[in-house]
Amino acid sequence: MITLYPIGIIHNAYKNKQVAPRQGRLSDEISTLEIFPEFTPALKGVEKVSNLFVLYWGDQSNREVLQSSTPFTDQQIGVFATRSPNRPNPIAICIADLLEVRQNTLTVRGVDAVDGSPILDIKVYDHKIDSISETRNDNW
Amino acid sequence: MITLYPIGIIHNAYKNKQVAPRQGRLSDEISTLEIFPEFTPALKGVEKVSNLFVLYWGDQSNREVLQSSTPFTDQQIGVFATRSPNRPNPIAICIADLLEVRQNTLTVRGVDAVDGSPILDIKVYDHKIDSISETRNDNW
Repeated sequence: MITLYPIGIIHNAYKNKQVAPRQGRLSDEISTLEIFPEFTPALKGVEKVSNLFVLYWGDQSNREVLQSSTPFTDQQIGVFATRSPNRPNPIAICIADLLEVRQNTLTVRGVDAVDGSPILDIKVYDHKIDSISETRNDNW
Repeated sequence: MITLYPIGIIHNAYKNKQVAPRQGRLSDEISTLEIFPEFTPALKGVEKVSNLFVLYWGDQSNREVLQSSTPFTDQQIGVFATRSPNRPNPIAICIADLLEVRQNTLTVRGVDAVDGSPILDIKVYDHKIDSISETRNDNW
């Protein structure tokens, strides 16, 4: 068994999962990422990057779900072939635009988490290794 | 505290972290992802996509490290502004090219994990939400 501890909390206007966007990048909503003070040293230099992977914990997800419908097809698809929030280990990934850093608070655009979601990790996004301009998905 | 359980294991030629590539996408090495049989239903449809996020656990990482040097600068940078494997919750992300699916075994290119690393999650990569062609990083 692997144990994680939250490094911070997401604050935004999405008070429940019914109002959260399907994908963070489809919304212009602003979130603030409150990083717990003991992790402030890990933010050194973050203000110099434009985009971040924000990994958060889907604490409202159903970890028993292995197949799911999607907005794009009537078929049930395996959750590993989707972005369903429901999956065995509900680690959600958003790619955020970083707008401002003040001490241990990051203001970002592009996060689809529900308000209060625990943050697990933040990593710089690098287009040289993370951007694939053409991908194929024949499920829908 | 949050608990995770591995959904599979990565098999490849990188027998220790000294020989693993700095970033999976910088290598042509092939890995196989063995998904545990109880999660096979979650793979339905995965053979129809070209690229996957592979999330794995950095079980050789140091979780106490908050700042790190990088290959690009002498400065110590906060781990949240880097891709260092050492970080409070060492959830590594690779974007893999999916080459073949046979039952519960996926053959992929672009994974930088050490052989035997536990897989935490797999998600489809979608260029419409995941590809940002120009990003800024003034740390190096």
